[in-house]
Amino acid sequence: MNENAIEIRFYDLLQKIESYNEALNVMFWDLRTGAPKKAVDQRSKTIGVLSSEVFRLKTSNEMKELLDQLSIQEELSVKTSAAVEESMKEYKKYEKIPEKEYAEYVMLQTKAESVWETAKETSDFSLFAPYLEKLIEANKKFLTYWGYEGTPYNTLLDFYEPGMTTDILDRVFNSLRERIVPLVKRIAGSNKQPDTSFIYQTFPVEGQRKASEFFLKELGYDFSAGRLDETVHPFQISLNRSDVRVTTKYDANDFRTAIFGTIHECGHALYEQNISADLEGTLLCSGTSYGIHESQSLFYENFVGRSFGFWKRHYETLREFSPEQLNSVSLEDFYFAINESKPSLIRIEADELTYPLHIMIRYEIEKELFNGNLAVADLPRVWNEKYEEYLGVTPPNDAKGVLQDVHWSGGSFGYFPSYALGLLYAAQIRESMLKDLPDLEERIEKGELSGILAWLSERIHQYGKTKKPLQLLMEVTGEELNPTYLIDFLEEKYTKLYSL
Amino acid sequence: MNENAIEIRFYDLLQKIESYNEALNVMFWDLRTGAPKKAVDQRSKTIGVLSSEVFRLKTSNEMKELLDQLSIQEELSVKTSAAVEESMKEYKKYEKIPEKEYAEYVMLQTKAESVWETAKETSDFSLFAPYLEKLIEANKKFLTYWGYEGTPYNTLLDFYEPGMTTDILDRVFNSLRERIVPLVKRIAGSNKQPDTSFIYQTFPVEGQRKASEFFLKELGYDFSAGRLDETVHPFQISLNRSDVRVTTKYDANDFRTAIFGTIHECGHALYEQNISADLEGTLLCSGTSYGIHESQSLFYENFVGRSFGFWKRHYETLREFSPEQLNSVSLEDFYFAINESKPSLIRIEADELTYPLHIMIRYEIEKELFNGNLAVADLPRVWNEKYEEYLGVTPPNDAKGVLQDVHWSGGSFGYFPSYALGLLYAAQIRESMLKDLPDLEERIEKGELSGILAWLSERIHQYGKTKKPLQLLMEVTGEELNPTYLIDFLEEKYTKLYSL
Repeated sequence: MNENAIEIRFYDLLQKIESYNEALNVMFWDLRTGAPKKAVDQRSKTIGVLSSEVFRLKTSNEMKELLDQLSIQEELSVKTSAAVEESMKEYKKYEKIPEKEYAEYVMLQTKAESVWETAKETSDFSLFAPYLEKLIEANKKFLTYWGYEGTPYNTLLDFYEPGMTTDILDRVFNSLRERIVPLVKRIAGSNKQPDTSFIYQTFPVEGQRKASEFFLKELGYDFSAGRLDETVHPFQISLNRSDVRVTTKYDANDFRTAIFGTIHECGHALYEQNISADLEGTLLCSGTSYGIHESQSLFYENFVGRSFGFWKRHYETLREFSPEQLNSVSLEDFYFAINESKPSLIRIEADELTYPLHIMIRYEIEKELFNGNLAVADLPRVWNEKYEEYLGVTPPNDAKGVLQDVHWSGGSFGYFPSYALGLLYAAQIRESMLKDLPDLEERIEKGELSGILAWLSERIHQYGKTKKPLQLLMEVTGEELNPTYLIDFLEEKYTKLYSL
Repeated sequence: MNENAIEIRFYDLLQKIESYNEALNVMFWDLRTGAPKKAVDQRSKTIGVLSSEVFRLKTSNEMKELLDQLSIQEELSVKTSAAVEESMKEYKKYEKIPEKEYAEYVMLQTKAESVWETAKETSDFSLFAPYLEKLIEANKKFLTYWGYEGTPYNTLLDFYEPGMTTDILDRVFNSLRERIVPLVKRIAGSNKQPDTSFIYQTFPVEGQRKASEFFLKELGYDFSAGRLDETVHPFQISLNRSDVRVTTKYDANDFRTAIFGTIHECGHALYEQNISADLEGTLLCSGTSYGIHESQSLFYENFVGRSFGFWKRHYETLREFSPEQLNSVSLEDFYFAINESKPSLIRIEADELTYPLHIMIRYEIEKELFNGNLAVADLPRVWNEKYEEYLGVTPPNDAKGVLQDVHWSGGSFGYFPSYALGLLYAAQIRESMLKDLPDLEERIEKGELSGILAWLSERIHQYGKTKKPLQLLMEVTGEELNPTYLIDFLEEKYTKLYSL
């Protein structure tokens, strides 16, 4: 078989995997947006059958054979090289685990998620603890198959953020902690505090829906290649490159959920909508990592959506959607209120300044679980101590503490750091953007957002997974991950807001 | 391998096929109800990949081996026997066609459908004719692989209505023609005609939506195992047994489209929602034939939804949804108007009395195409002559004549008769129901529909595909297909309506 024929077979196989993934994602989207409740049982079986098929294809002898043959070929295109690397990574991740062991692990995940739900509802960590122990044990066993460089936890980090290590994270998180913790304390002691009472008045859901559609269009979201729906937990999902959907949640008594949730998911969607068409059906047609993906959603949410210029332009429009609530609130008071910073217990409700502290707590705990000797039984105590230390708050119960997040119940260890990395990347990317677009803030104020999207698409979006996150960061910003940009931005913004 | 193990493998394979079918149906539903327009290209590829996989599984060596082993086993359960028979039928249908020939045919279908669309838009039969010729030639070629009993067309009929033959159809259609054609003529000559002008006034779409939901609930549709959406062409689709969805169309200037369309699709959905849970994932968990399926939709549409008692009960409710349009129309005038019978050109707009004549025309043409020597070039002429003969109307162009239906462009020959069979079955089933529920009309008038649904579910729905249509008809009604019941019903109803 000639080289060309091998490549054709390889891309056919990837297209097949991507087709199954598309079918799975349509079913996932459907379950979240409006499938009838009785549909779930059989749908779960169906999802199980197709997921197994994807697993089988990714670890098949055919895949192995094609990867072996392509690996020895010279002069592969950038695209094919990246597709081979990505497929090899997936192949190696799964083929090393004995099939039976993996099947048991999948069952454990399902069971653990359902136990976690009950444990959270009843705030009873002891229910969840034995499952969490098993999940950690299973991952430690997998780590003996996978191996690691530096520390075991690095391998887990690498699944979500290729190239990321505890060395890098320790360095940047230390810098963050040193300057963010004191800033949070100064804010708490400030005499100037925002009046946020208007936020909790009624913002009609229909107005929130219109506002969400308005902001999506304003930011450059292509509605002919996507749609907006309502779900309990907002998300973005890419069914294919021309079908990138977002969801949001309308809380009549807190419009921030919908407005900033929509802008956040829009940032994810703009990434997916602007990947090169050439990458469709190759495993490369999605964001390159969880952290880089989050950098795009947070760029739009924080640096665009929470900026003064954005609201100078759009506050009147928002008022039209909820005049009773907003007519007596000035632009300045509105801006201050939506940027309130206050230590809190729940990660997903945290403001942009305290958010990284929530992540650092989880990072330190995960690192100790895998690299050190932290025992599951000690988690609630350690969790609460760290919340007191970093944020000055102590969870009244485990539901509002160690049980709040779903991630561990699904065995997703190493995922959390990407949320903070998203913030750090976004700030560093913004600094680089300012060199090309020094009038960035004016553009936002004038509603000229297309140049911003074009800049991001040209340097980041189009490449999909063909560039690794740290390589991309270096190419876009000319330096390694540097936390200074985020810290400086936050210090300047919050010093001014709170007149520190 | 013991017998039990073979059966387990067999059912695993069927579950896999059904899982792919579920994924395909979710994607199909999504495309029709709200997928963004740019999604279509990649989605089509994905659907192609999964469809090929279903084809491959149905004709796989594994399927052959399992069917061979199960066929020689004694004492298979009713369910397993039926699943083997169904799988064998599918296997034989496809495995005899050389793979290349089948792939070419699938491409021809896709192309022909798109050419048909243009031909219909421009009312130019000559565009479509060469494709129709190729489709017929391909099916004639396939018939040499499939073989036939009696006449070649019987094999095509059998795909949609197992056991159906031209002998049976000739017999019942002759009886229908003999008595329906004169009845239609007498109606045309009657001095008493309904005033239908109010129908074309505005019925607000929101009211139609509420009415559609109301009637679905009233008829026994389970919304926790389904949902209602809006599409250009209404349909019912079963994703799984507990996720049976219906769609309808809201025409602000003709409420009949939504009301009777919804009731029709509801009849289909009630069938699917009430199949025995035991049949899920076995290829048997759907209606046993196109004709029996149609009998359920038409039972509800015509015998419930177009009855006087139904409107005696619900007319006030409908009025609330559109008071301006309906307040000055009496119940009697409303009932007469929705039962207007008038020869027309378009099948899907035809009333219940003239509808079978549209089907008979198509049946006679298809039969001549496959059993006789009718040439494609002669179709427009023959079509128009038959419309003049049976209905007294002549299409002004081919768009309103021979090009009106999509079926032939997809190669669906033998499908049309099931629409008329649905009417015939429904009337015969109703006659049988009257023996158990002599107060049928009173129940409808009182809104006591649960007993009717229970009767149909117990005798028909629950069996899914485990009973063949003609066997089912015999068991439910105690006799062969007998057109008298439909004819008597129609004669009585229309004689009274039009004071003939």
